[in-house]
Amino acid sequence: MPRYFIQLAYDGSNFHGWQIQPSANSVQEEIQKALGKLHGNEKIEIVGCGRTDAGVHAKNYFLHTDLPQAWDPQQLVFKLNRMTPPDISFSKAWELHSDLHARFDASSRTYRYFINRHKDPFVRTQSWYLQQDLDIDAMNQAAKHLLGIQDFSSFAKAHTDVKTNICEVFSAEWFETANGLYFEISANRFLRNMVRAIVGTLVEVGLGKIKASELPGIIAAKNRSEAYVSVPAQGLFLWEITYEKAPQLQG
Amino acid sequence: MPRYFIQLAYDGSNFHGWQIQPSANSVQEEIQKALGKLHGNEKIEIVGCGRTDAGVHAKNYFLHTDLPQAWDPQQLVFKLNRMTPPDISFSKAWELHSDLHARFDASSRTYRYFINRHKDPFVRTQSWYLQQDLDIDAMNQAAKHLLGIQDFSSFAKAHTDVKTNICEVFSAEWFETANGLYFEISANRFLRNMVRAIVGTLVEVGLGKIKASELPGIIAAKNRSEAYVSVPAQGLFLWEITYEKAPQLQG
Repeated sequence: MPRYFIQLAYDGSNFHGWQIQPSANSVQEEIQKALGKLHGNEKIEIVGCGRTDAGVHAKNYFLHTDLPQAWDPQQLVFKLNRMTPPDISFSKAWELHSDLHARFDASSRTYRYFINRHKDPFVRTQSWYLQQDLDIDAMNQAAKHLLGIQDFSSFAKAHTDVKTNICEVFSAEWFETANGLYFEISANRFLRNMVRAIVGTLVEVGLGKIKASELPGIIAAKNRSEAYVSVPAQGLFLWEITYEKAPQLQG
Repeated sequence: MPRYFIQLAYDGSNFHGWQIQPSANSVQEEIQKALGKLHGNEKIEIVGCGRTDAGVHAKNYFLHTDLPQAWDPQQLVFKLNRMTPPDISFSKAWELHSDLHARFDASSRTYRYFINRHKDPFVRTQSWYLQQDLDIDAMNQAAKHLLGIQDFSSFAKAHTDVKTNICEVFSAEWFETANGLYFEISANRFLRNMVRAIVGTLVEVGLGKIKASELPGIIAAKNRSEAYVSVPAQGLFLWEITYEKAPQLQG
C-alpha cells in the first residue's frame, strides 16, 4: 500500500480538536470519512503530526495514510478539497516511503499565538482580544528562560498519557504587528495545553503582575499550579512542522 | 437631546441582518440593548445608514441616535465596545447637529464582494469560494453598463416597500488580489439584494455563459428573472459611506 503525506490547514473553531472522539466532531473524523468515500467505504486510518485541542487552528498540518490504491497526488488533493467541509483545506500531497511517520518523524513544531489589541469582529475567531498594555520587552526576557531542554510539567495538563514532560524549546519570541502581537515558539515536542499555559504566564509578565526573573522558579517547580491561567484557544495556530528526514515537506 | 453619529463594523455571519426583527437576532437590537443599559434601561432608538441582509458584513457603518445625556464621544465608544458581543466593534463617535440623518443624508454607499479562488478555512466566512476561471476583462466590460442613473428592477427583490428602483451608480469595477478578486460598486442608493444579484450576473459573464454586451438588455427588461442567481451573502461587505454634509465622518 503506498503511503501518502498530505499537507492541510483547518479552522478549529467548530471542531473538538484534531482527534476522533465518540460524540464530538473532529478534523480526523471528517478526513477519514472523505477518504473512506473515495475508497468504496473502506475504513481508512490517518495519522496526524499531533493533536490540537478544541478550538485550536492549524495553518499547516501533515498527516500520513496508507491507501489501498495509487493516486496522482494533485488529484487526491483536489478530491479531498471537494469532499470536506469549508473549514478544512488541503494544499499538497506526496507519495513517500512507508517508514516515514507523520507524528514520530516530525523534528520540530512551531506554534503562534495571536493577541489583538483592538476589538475587531473579523479576526475574533483567530486571535485573543486583550486591550491592556503589555510590556513586550519584559515578555521577551521571560521567554528566553524557556529555551533548551527542560521539564515543562509546570505548563502541562496533569494525568495525560505521556511518559515524560521534557521538551527541547528551540526558539520562543514575541513579535509586534500592526494590530497587536504574536508569540512564536518552536520545539521538538509540546505537551497538552503547554503553549496556552506559557502564553498565559508570559502575559502576566507583560501586565507587570510577575517579573521575567520569576520564570526559572516557575519552571523548576514542575507544578502546574505555579504557572498561570491558560489563554483562550482561538488565538492559537499550529504554524509549521519540519521533517529532517523529508525536507520536501514544506510548511 | 444631543445627536451622536457612531462609526462601527460588524461580522454579519451570526446576525439576521441589521434591522430589528421579532424572533431573530440583529445588529440593531444588540446596540439598542447596550445603549438602553447605559441609560438606566430607557428605550433608545438608533437609525442606521442602511439595512444589510442576513449574513452580510459591514466594514464601515454609521448610525445616529439622540441620547438623553451628553457623552464624551471616546467614552461612549469605549463603553459600547465593552457592552456588545465580539462580532460588533465601534471605532469613533461624533456629536453633530440634530438635522443630520444617518440614512437620508448618506450621499454614497460602497460595497465590496470578495471571491476567493482557493479553498481557505480562514476566510470562508468572509468570501465566496469559486474555483472556476473568470474572465475579469469581460466582467469589467459588463460592469461599465451599470454606470449612471438607471432603473435596477432587474436586480431588485420584488414587493419591497421602496417607491422607485432608480439608482445612480458612480463606479463599478473588479480588482484582482493575491487570492482572488473583488467587485467594488458605489451608488447613491442600493435596492435590496441588488449587489448580490449584480455580482451573480457578472460572474455568468466571467464564466463565459453570457456576453458583456447582454447587460444593457438585462437592465432594460426591468425584470428580476432576466438577471441571474444571487451570490452568497458571506462575500459581501458594506465598505464605505460618505456624507457630503458632514465630511468629518470618514469611513
